[in-house]
Amino acid sequence: MVQKNKKKSCAILIIGNEILSGRTKDQNVSFLASWLNSNLGIKIEEVRIIPDIEKTIIKNVLELSKNFNYVLTTGGIGPTHDDITAKSISKAFKKKYIFNSEALNILKKYYGKEFNGPRKKMAKMPDNSKLIYNPSSAAPGFMIKNVICLPGVPLILKSMVHNLKKYLKPGARIFSKSINCQTVESQIAVGLNKIQKKYKKTVEIGSYPFFRLGKIGVSVVLRSSKKKNLQSCHKDIIRIIKIKKIKIVKGV
Amino acid sequence: MVQKNKKKSCAILIIGNEILSGRTKDQNVSFLASWLNSNLGIKIEEVRIIPDIEKTIIKNVLELSKNFNYVLTTGGIGPTHDDITAKSISKAFKKKYIFNSEALNILKKYYGKEFNGPRKKMAKMPDNSKLIYNPSSAAPGFMIKNVICLPGVPLILKSMVHNLKKYLKPGARIFSKSINCQTVESQIAVGLNKIQKKYKKTVEIGSYPFFRLGKIGVSVVLRSSKKKNLQSCHKDIIRIIKIKKIKIVKGV
Repeated sequence: MVQKNKKKSCAILIIGNEILSGRTKDQNVSFLASWLNSNLGIKIEEVRIIPDIEKTIIKNVLELSKNFNYVLTTGGIGPTHDDITAKSISKAFKKKYIFNSEALNILKKYYGKEFNGPRKKMAKMPDNSKLIYNPSSAAPGFMIKNVICLPGVPLILKSMVHNLKKYLKPGARIFSKSINCQTVESQIAVGLNKIQKKYKKTVEIGSYPFFRLGKIGVSVVLRSSKKKNLQSCHKDIIRIIKIKKIKIVKGV
Repeated sequence: MVQKNKKKSCAILIIGNEILSGRTKDQNVSFLASWLNSNLGIKIEEVRIIPDIEKTIIKNVLELSKNFNYVLTTGGIGPTHDDITAKSISKAFKKKYIFNSEALNILKKYYGKEFNGPRKKMAKMPDNSKLIYNPSSAAPGFMIKNVICLPGVPLILKSMVHNLKKYLKPGARIFSKSINCQTVESQIAVGLNKIQKKYKKTVEIGSYPFFRLGKIGVSVVLRSSKKKNLQSCHKDIIRIIKIKKIKIVKGV
């Protein structure tokens, strides 16, 4: 499953009706994507948001786990009836859904006398899982096969990610450069297209219009694992922007 | 493909490297989910975020189009080289990728003398598409089979959605009620579980911890297409909260 080159691919599976209904805005995708790239050189290649339905979770975990080096799930590992991620993933991988003794000890110590049934549920996970420690609210995430399960609450998730470093093999870091200019996309589209063809295999060029504070403009974003190609592509784009007498602006 | 009951299901396919890289935070999912539910009774049941890669777009459009009543795509219909949604969807459905004469007229009128090659590209789409008008920046979206393609820029997308009403058949509206209380999930988990079992087929109960302004609490969210069941389920939950002497708070 793990690719031979240094490119490490990853998918995110967001499990939660509250995101699909529009009630809650996801905040984890952009955080995880940036963190994984800058800390581990791992690229997110697909995200799925699905409801809290067992057979849907099983189907998606199996598909993504087969197609990507790693899968991160968020959500559904708390104490209530709608937290069914751990049980569903146990079924997906045909593992027993059992109490993890280390997780049980962590939670017992954290809650003391207030360690009740629903809290105990948070120590239940697929047999043979590795724990992802949680310095914020104790209840650990877990890794089984190439799937890592994290909580959905952004503050707690953020406190846990540095613990992923011991489980994920790093890939080649992706470098990026942005050029923000006062123009419209159609003015630079032909030039960018030519340059993208020149750097087809090494640099990914994205063009994104922006409208902020009464100004319109375009952000051109270059991404590559090869610094040299990135720099030379950047120069080529600056040249066409200067030929067209387009103003480059700082920030967006 | 369209289900016989009134439940209308929909998937969103977000096409864009900028969302996967973490550079741009998606704003369209929560807006579209809320708008579709309150205006048309259509429920989002899956979201996928994928890169600007033709074969990936084709694979995902075909899968989602088969599994859901409707698919909304966002992104990739602008004038630059990385805007490949219209071409990819033409290939997916084996339709010619051609200039739509009405779209061409709209754009010609809007741009006048400045109607250049890249802008012309925005009138190219699958043969036999229906147009989704764009009051904000002219370039229309389009519908082909059960797939509707919208732009990725949130401001423009928002200006276009009311035009979806003539193409999407409404379903049963989902009503919701929230109860925010000063407690932790494990205190109400057993009670909620019992109530969820009682309303298994009619009300969906979600439990979401919050941490804001130094307070911790839980939002219990009920969703149902049946108002009566929703109200009676709401009463049941209020009762267990009162028995436990938990404080109900306004807002979150």
